[in-house]
Amino acid sequence: MPVANEGQDELSLLVVQKYGGSSVAAPEKIKNVASRIKRRLEAENSKMAVVVSAMGKTTDGLIALAKEVSPAPPAREMDMLLATGEQVSAALLAMALRDLGVSAISRNAFQLGIETSETHSDARIQDIDLSLLRRSFRDNNVVVITGFQGVTPEGDLTTLGRGGSDTSAVAVAAKAVSTGIDAVCEIYSDVPGIFTCDPNKVPGARKLDYITYEEMLELASLGAKVLHMRSVELARKYGVTLYCASTFSEERGTYVVKKLPEWLESPVVTGVTAARNQMKFVVKRLPEDGDVLPGIFHALALAGVNLDMISTANDGGMSFLTFTALDGDAQTVTRAVSDYMNDNGLTGWALETGGPVTKVSAVGDGMNAATGVAGRVFSALRSRRISVMGISTSDINISILVENERADEAVAALAEEFELTER
Amino acid sequence: MPVANEGQDELSLLVVQKYGGSSVAAPEKIKNVASRIKRRLEAENSKMAVVVSAMGKTTDGLIALAKEVSPAPPAREMDMLLATGEQVSAALLAMALRDLGVSAISRNAFQLGIETSETHSDARIQDIDLSLLRRSFRDNNVVVITGFQGVTPEGDLTTLGRGGSDTSAVAVAAKAVSTGIDAVCEIYSDVPGIFTCDPNKVPGARKLDYITYEEMLELASLGAKVLHMRSVELARKYGVTLYCASTFSEERGTYVVKKLPEWLESPVVTGVTAARNQMKFVVKRLPEDGDVLPGIFHALALAGVNLDMISTANDGGMSFLTFTALDGDAQTVTRAVSDYMNDNGLTGWALETGGPVTKVSAVGDGMNAATGVAGRVFSALRSRRISVMGISTSDINISILVENERADEAVAALAEEFELTER
Repeated sequence: MPVANEGQDELSLLVVQKYGGSSVAAPEKIKNVASRIKRRLEAENSKMAVVVSAMGKTTDGLIALAKEVSPAPPAREMDMLLATGEQVSAALLAMALRDLGVSAISRNAFQLGIETSETHSDARIQDIDLSLLRRSFRDNNVVVITGFQGVTPEGDLTTLGRGGSDTSAVAVAAKAVSTGIDAVCEIYSDVPGIFTCDPNKVPGARKLDYITYEEMLELASLGAKVLHMRSVELARKYGVTLYCASTFSEERGTYVVKKLPEWLESPVVTGVTAARNQMKFVVKRLPEDGDVLPGIFHALALAGVNLDMISTANDGGMSFLTFTALDGDAQTVTRAVSDYMNDNGLTGWALETGGPVTKVSAVGDGMNAATGVAGRVFSALRSRRISVMGISTSDINISILVENERADEAVAALAEEFELTER
Repeated sequence: MPVANEGQDELSLLVVQKYGGSSVAAPEKIKNVASRIKRRLEAENSKMAVVVSAMGKTTDGLIALAKEVSPAPPAREMDMLLATGEQVSAALLAMALRDLGVSAISRNAFQLGIETSETHSDARIQDIDLSLLRRSFRDNNVVVITGFQGVTPEGDLTTLGRGGSDTSAVAVAAKAVSTGIDAVCEIYSDVPGIFTCDPNKVPGARKLDYITYEEMLELASLGAKVLHMRSVELARKYGVTLYCASTFSEERGTYVVKKLPEWLESPVVTGVTAARNQMKFVVKRLPEDGDVLPGIFHALALAGVNLDMISTANDGGMSFLTFTALDGDAQTVTRAVSDYMNDNGLTGWALETGGPVTKVSAVGDGMNAATGVAGRVFSALRSRRISVMGISTSDINISILVENERADEAVAALAEEFELTER
């Protein structure tokens, strides 16, 4: 990305903020956001790019309207329709800011040259024309940006998929950082930050001050309500510090960073999360033929099944393949595996299905340096008589499978073991 | 406007249609419009540009939302907000057309290069990039265009003022005509055409098959519900034939043309209209000084008053000035005239106010060639004992002032005299 020269002096510090749909769901809430922005400007002499989502349930309403007109609306027109939602909230927030005496202007995807791929309803941002943003800042301290949308090189409107406004915000910050501007990205929602465990399930779950990009990506299910995962990947790629906090309080939120601050001792485990309704599959007695496993994986990929926790074992010249998939994919898995076996004249194999089960994951950058983590996980669960039905590990993650009914207990056991709750 | 070469062969006949807010007010109505377009395409092998307004009361709803956020929202942000309304209906109509198997695509002001002046909320169209429209027709028979809006050369969204979608439609047709394309412009609404008199006031008012641009402009109040007057001016300038008809029936509508077809005998009077709540002012005993009248007109213009039916008379070295203005401007007129007189040390004058009165106008291209029209107007009114309190005439128009309470009778008398009603 080339460095723009024009107006360089005007933009050395950029605060990018993003407010989600619930933060701008009504005129009063939009005015609240405007007041927050004004206070922030008064405290810090920076320019601010504020990315907004559509108001409340606007997007759902527009989708329902489209379905009334056509049972299968073309994605291109759907994007044209949905993109209006963010334009409404951007214009309204700019009005509210002006009303408070803040110099602000709204800008949509055309006006900022937010260029994306052509995959309607799930487009990827390819570039942002920073010179257009700089120009918008000449007479304004705040530029309110329509999140969730972009334009193709041909000039068609696109949307980035659900939650895409986070990605819009990170992309603006990333583009700024890549041209030497000091930029941070703050994501405001109705959730006050990232917690060690789901606070609705684990009493005393603690809000984290810091979490690394890697941990955040592994803990997707904890952060899903707060952060769009693609935005975390983008932030990691460009080294943009993310900050997640509540729109409705002044409570301190969570920073998502590359490395924890040095003064902060890395906990072994940062968070524990649970992904429910998985199914465990074991394909038994496969010939030890190098083509068979890739063939099965290919057949399952074609069938649209995402596999997880894959492991293999050999015994007496036969292979065993174990993996998990979503409960709802069980029939598809069975059919795809059977078809592959029959098409290739394989016999003597068997497919065993178990579940539904829950994948409980403990994640922490500190796991790297710690020893005995797996032992502690097993001990904590055994002391509560929770059976472990499968396990997989990575550098910063240990995941185990437990029965659905014992999942909450398993999370609580690990939270206690790794001191993730308030005393 | 330069002739585009690109794809010339693809676009030799263009039907421009415009559907107003009530025509697209709900999903069912949008589907009805889509069916009409499909039938038209099947009947005639042309390309179609379909300009749409926002659905039903959408614009009013957005304005109300803005007022909740800011008591005086900036016009620039208001345009950003309101422009979303037409984008929603354009996307939905494109979906409905696709659903019927019609190749259609929606296009907003950015995507068609609809360039306007920078006067937010009342912008003027300056150019349309026809090459972008031609390109949109390559893979599509119908291009659905967001009415009411444009973009400035700087890329700001603008709106054209209430009813501006008519102007959008005529501008597309005018641009096409100016590059040698055979284009017509059809305006569909919930009104089936232009009538000789207001059908709600005059029983038997007749729908006209044809009316000239000039008559239409003079009869603004008859056509206001059907046609945006700026669109008529634009159609006249570029010689675009307009056709107004109902979205909800197959009933024949009204053509607005440069000249009536030769086989059609021009009626002396084409239509009669009434503008209520005018006030009549007489400034008496002004010195015959060349500066005084211009001075009074300037003072009234500064005060924002629109004058009508101006006439002057001289008597014994003194001038008399008569004019009308809207009832609601009466106090402003009195103050502006008094201030001017006092500021210029003028004495001996008097201001007389009469009314409220109604201006009844009879309009017809045929008036030009006819004699005795004023006589027929006076006779028709005298036979019903309706007093004429003022008169003004032009080539194709005769306007008289009557008491508000007698206005409907006066219109009926003229309609009868000039045979404007069904027998």
